Amino acid sequence: MQSLLSYVESNKDRYLSELKGLLAIPSVSTNPENSEDIRRCAGWMADHMKTIGLQNVEIFPTPGHPIVYGDWLKAPGKPTVLLYGHYDVQPPEPLDLWTSPPFEATIRDGNLFARGASDDKGQVFIHLKSLEAYLRNGGDLPINIKLLIEGEEEIGSDNLEAFVREKKELLKSDLVLISDSSMFAKGVPSICYGLRGLAYMQIDLVGPNKDLHSGSFGGTVHNPIQALSEIIAQLHDRNGKVTIPGFYTGVLPLTKKERNAYKKLPWSDRKYAKELGVEKLYGEKGFTTLERVWARPTLECNGIWGGFTGEGAKTVLPSKASAKISMRLVPNQSSAKAAKLFEKHVRKIAPKSVKVTIRNLHGGEPAITPIDGPGVQAAVSALEKGFGKKPLYQREGGSIPIVVQFKELLGIDTVLLGFGLPDENAHAPDEFINLDNFFGGIRTSLHFFNELPHFIKAHGKKR
Amino acid sequence: MQSLLSYVESNKDRYLSELKGLLAIPSVSTNPENSEDIRRCAGWMADHMKTIGLQNVEIFPTPGHPIVYGDWLKAPGKPTVLLYGHYDVQPPEPLDLWTSPPFEATIRDGNLFARGASDDKGQVFIHLKSLEAYLRNGGDLPINIKLLIEGEEEIGSDNLEAFVREKKELLKSDLVLISDSSMFAKGVPSICYGLRGLAYMQIDLVGPNKDLHSGSFGGTVHNPIQALSEIIAQLHDRNGKVTIPGFYTGVLPLTKKERNAYKKLPWSDRKYAKELGVEKLYGEKGFTTLERVWARPTLECNGIWGGFTGEGAKTVLPSKASAKISMRLVPNQSSAKAAKLFEKHVRKIAPKSVKVTIRNLHGGEPAITPIDGPGVQAAVSALEKGFGKKPLYQREGGSIPIVVQFKELLGIDTVLLGFGLPDENAHAPDEFINLDNFFGGIRTSLHFFNELPHFIKAHGKKR
Repeated sequence: MQSLLSYVESNKDRYLSELKGLLAIPSVSTNPENSEDIRRCAGWMADHMKTIGLQNVEIFPTPGHPIVYGDWLKAPGKPTVLLYGHYDVQPPEPLDLWTSPPFEATIRDGNLFARGASDDKGQVFIHLKSLEAYLRNGGDLPINIKLLIEGEEEIGSDNLEAFVREKKELLKSDLVLISDSSMFAKGVPSICYGLRGLAYMQIDLVGPNKDLHSGSFGGTVHNPIQALSEIIAQLHDRNGKVTIPGFYTGVLPLTKKERNAYKKLPWSDRKYAKELGVEKLYGEKGFTTLERVWARPTLECNGIWGGFTGEGAKTVLPSKASAKISMRLVPNQSSAKAAKLFEKHVRKIAPKSVKVTIRNLHGGEPAITPIDGPGVQAAVSALEKGFGKKPLYQREGGSIPIVVQFKELLGIDTVLLGFGLPDENAHAPDEFINLDNFFGGIRTSLHFFNELPHFIKAHGKKR
Repeated sequence: MQSLLSYVESNKDRYLSELKGLLAIPSVSTNPENSEDIRRCAGWMADHMKTIGLQNVEIFPTPGHPIVYGDWLKAPGKPTVLLYGHYDVQPPEPLDLWTSPPFEATIRDGNLFARGASDDKGQVFIHLKSLEAYLRNGGDLPINIKLLIEGEEEIGSDNLEAFVREKKELLKSDLVLISDSSMFAKGVPSICYGLRGLAYMQIDLVGPNKDLHSGSFGGTVHNPIQALSEIIAQLHDRNGKVTIPGFYTGVLPLTKKERNAYKKLPWSDRKYAKELGVEKLYGEKGFTTLERVWARPTLECNGIWGGFTGEGAKTVLPSKASAKISMRLVPNQSSAKAAKLFEKHVRKIAPKSVKVTIRNLHGGEPAITPIDGPGVQAAVSALEKGFGKKPLYQREGGSIPIVVQFKELLGIDTVLLGFGLPDENAHAPDEFINLDNFFGGIRTSLHFFNELPHFIKAHGKKR
């Protein structure tokens, strides 16, 4: 291991210059004008895989952007890791808010600025350099590895599920490893072991069959905006709890260990409120802010509209009002069930004076990776060695659909080893990756691959 | 009077052909391309006033479209009536929905179809023909009259207030007469004696200082859409009453006489609900539908917006949410006071977790013309004689700002003598005026001018 770490140490400049080359390709997946760049980036990724010694490298076309695959499977009896990442990036606009050009990677204050620096080219590159270190210094990996790097993550990964479904045998592994997220804070390495699911609904109310004059008709019919507001206002009680009957049924309770782990994280409600510019936080009573956003199901209004929304005063009593409302779900809730409970409850509380349509627009399941399992424990050990600091446990309030898909299609858990930072401007101007995290990430990756077999073996024995 | 009625009877065809000439001018005030037509129409109006024997006819320029004035003031000691109307019309579009061309007046089934037939050229013309009958048959009017016919009613009467303010002496009168509205229903002549006022507000809420990811932040801050809904939901109680403290203070109570008068109007809640496509009406308990819309103050949401309102599912926890909310006011409420009470209450019930901005966008005062006053009583008597049927009393739920301006600037009440019908398609394709109403209107106008002096005299004595 020491020689590998020395190899990394002595190649830092080359790593950065290679990464800059990767970051120079504007592989913006949403923009048709960049389709040639996307192809070029997939080619770069495939070539680089070959260069560092991976095998069976192949660019798989999809109806959208291609998927790059490569593997190294010469460690019989050892676990197989499926490394997932993406080479596409968000659009760089607005360009005038970038301090340096988005596709000319620039180092300032120990950070490397460029679109994709953290999300996700930089984090994929961390593992490529870790694998390179193994393959160039002795030639063997302590594990088997399969890389699956897609080009449509920023536009919904539309073609990934079909690919995984079709290539189940090719992708068969013991564990998924994803580095496409953040650690808890700078200097606070952490391991994310849970994600929330989603049930995204739309309510459309119709009151009168046409827009009416609010003078000539005001006071005679139920205003659909008012009715919608009355429905929304009833969805939370005074303690910030969601009022939908059955909503909390089956929710995996937080363990004492988890609650204690979250308490160890550096966190200040006051600082959080100040950063968001609010005088007061809001949420379910009896839970801390981090518990609420990571381990409790919540309900948020994502959009609302109805009537006149322009400048000035138009005296309309509108015919229609609509809202988009989504529920974040935690293990062991189900998206379909939450949607059903929502619809039933809204229909029940909606007044007879309006017509109600409810649609389920989108759903995703929550996910959790056993905190005591070998994957998480190997990651914890690797992070401690890579960053010289015991990592903390966290979950994430959002969803990563691919994690659920890997669980459903391949039957395996995911380890989320994020080397980004919460303020690294992913999806915004001046995206960056912190160089301490970048090199700490490479060291962590080296240790993770090295230790995973031992943890898996030990875990098997414990059972 | 009999000779006047005979004169009208024998000149019907000429009236219609003259009216068709007036309706042929596309005096669309909102369309700059029609500005020449607007001038032509003002000229037509002035020429016609002169032709029928009015004096001091003048076309007053304004920063917008001109105002046509004319008078006949040779009845010393008799009351002076200020007749207000407008010669501009709404745009005719969409043209393909007209059965006959909008500026080629066409008679079908006893109705005269054309843009402006009812709103308001046809109704102004009714009085012109009534005045003509007097002036051509003996040469004297039983009253003094001043005509004020503007060209910007359909675009907000922006230059009228300044004109009235400047020409107070010229316009000094005892009573305003306006025929620019509808009777209650076909065959149901009615007199409108009250209008509601308006206080139009906007609430802007800011929660977090930027749009957040609803997964990563959902459950930690008060969603401004939710907070706004909670505020709106609190503005009405279970009985449909507005909950703003002091809101109903000063409201002129409905008299027994008024409530009985409204009960005589042909009305069916079931039919009304069916026409509007709602299963159930809604409003303040303890009042009938007509009472609510005419004589009770109400609060309606005119618009609401916030967050993502496009197709599909975007998981945003928005920074902002806004609503436009207006209150309809009745005598003796004040627009400024209602706005103040609204702001105070909303600030009080708004949660600390969001920032609130409240703006007063627009206001107007309610108006009522004393039901027992000589103007209304003369109109009632005239309608009974003109239509052979006792008219019923009604108010109107909307506002007519000019009525309040005449009261404020000239200190006089307005009599609203509407000869239109509720379904006459004002502002829509196939606008028409019913010919029975048109000729009944001329007869009513003759009687109104004839009887007004007697009612005013009798009223003075009663006092």
